[in-house]
Amino acid sequence: MTAHKGIALLAETELFRGLGADKIATLLTICAEVRFRRNQIIMEEGARGGAIYIIIDGTVEVAKSLILEEPGGEDNRANKVFTKLTAEEHPVFGEIALLEESERTATIRAITDCVFYEIKKDDLLRLAEADKELGYLIMWNLARIVSSRLRKADEDVIKLTTALSIVLKEA
Amino acid sequence: MTAHKGIALLAETELFRGLGADKIATLLTICAEVRFRRNQIIMEEGARGGAIYIIIDGTVEVAKSLILEEPGGEDNRANKVFTKLTAEEHPVFGEIALLEESERTATIRAITDCVFYEIKKDDLLRLAEADKELGYLIMWNLARIVSSRLRKADEDVIKLTTALSIVLKEA
Repeated sequence: MTAHKGIALLAETELFRGLGADKIATLLTICAEVRFRRNQIIMEEGARGGAIYIIIDGTVEVAKSLILEEPGGEDNRANKVFTKLTAEEHPVFGEIALLEESERTATIRAITDCVFYEIKKDDLLRLAEADKELGYLIMWNLARIVSSRLRKADEDVIKLTTALSIVLKEA
Repeated sequence: MTAHKGIALLAETELFRGLGADKIATLLTICAEVRFRRNQIIMEEGARGGAIYIIIDGTVEVAKSLILEEPGGEDNRANKVFTKLTAEEHPVFGEIALLEESERTATIRAITDCVFYEIKKDDLLRLAEADKELGYLIMWNLARIVSSRLRKADEDVIKLTTALSIVLKEA
């Protein structure tokens, strides 16, 4: 991809919203273009993560466990929830790695051949340390992304508790 | 409270972790010491919020709706989950207001006489804009706070779905 197209693409992402073209050009220097074939796993729930990904081309499936599995139990598709992410809005995933030394919260699988920008956590934090304005805007965007997911999860908790209370009353 | 004590207190909060004494002294200039009597509501779920609070002294109760209420229905304590926050670790609340023009996600009530630092959203964002290093650190801390809440909410979703699937199997 040309630098010009790369900058335009990064400017459209939620994570880099509000950054000027010069800052985005700097970010582009730490982006590696990586390709995954259909059916390849990009990241696995429970694994340690050290990079974030931006979809340039293709579609991925996000699978999150919904039911506590017995340890050593079989992987059961019925116990997971699946959502699809397409390149259209260039979604970012894996970004929780910027915040915590924690495990991946979902499994991401390519369901078409895919192209991503991969940004290593350490590279991004080094840039943020060196340019605090860039760091401020990225962290603010990141906090907003996580906050909107929290709102969605809180709504899910309310719906599930409501469903559970109805079922228990009828039992 | 003396400035010295105020700075020591703010330095202990999760939101201002990693900030130097000079930055905290600047933050202290936008903190207003406010008092609430036992049983007073500090913020109400669903209302618009424009300030964050740090507990200096006392205990509050955080009430979150767990069941979808019928519109105009009675306020029912059985449909809420309650947690307590004490001054011990100087927890911050209302901080989602820094990220979104959104409604308060919980009702906070003083269950003893309480003292708080109140920081207006606009004042804090003005400081962050003027000092990007301060802004970067606060937004990073904030993203981490929200991220750890998201992890907790995701765990709750898994537990509730598991419970619901067990109840539905037995029904």
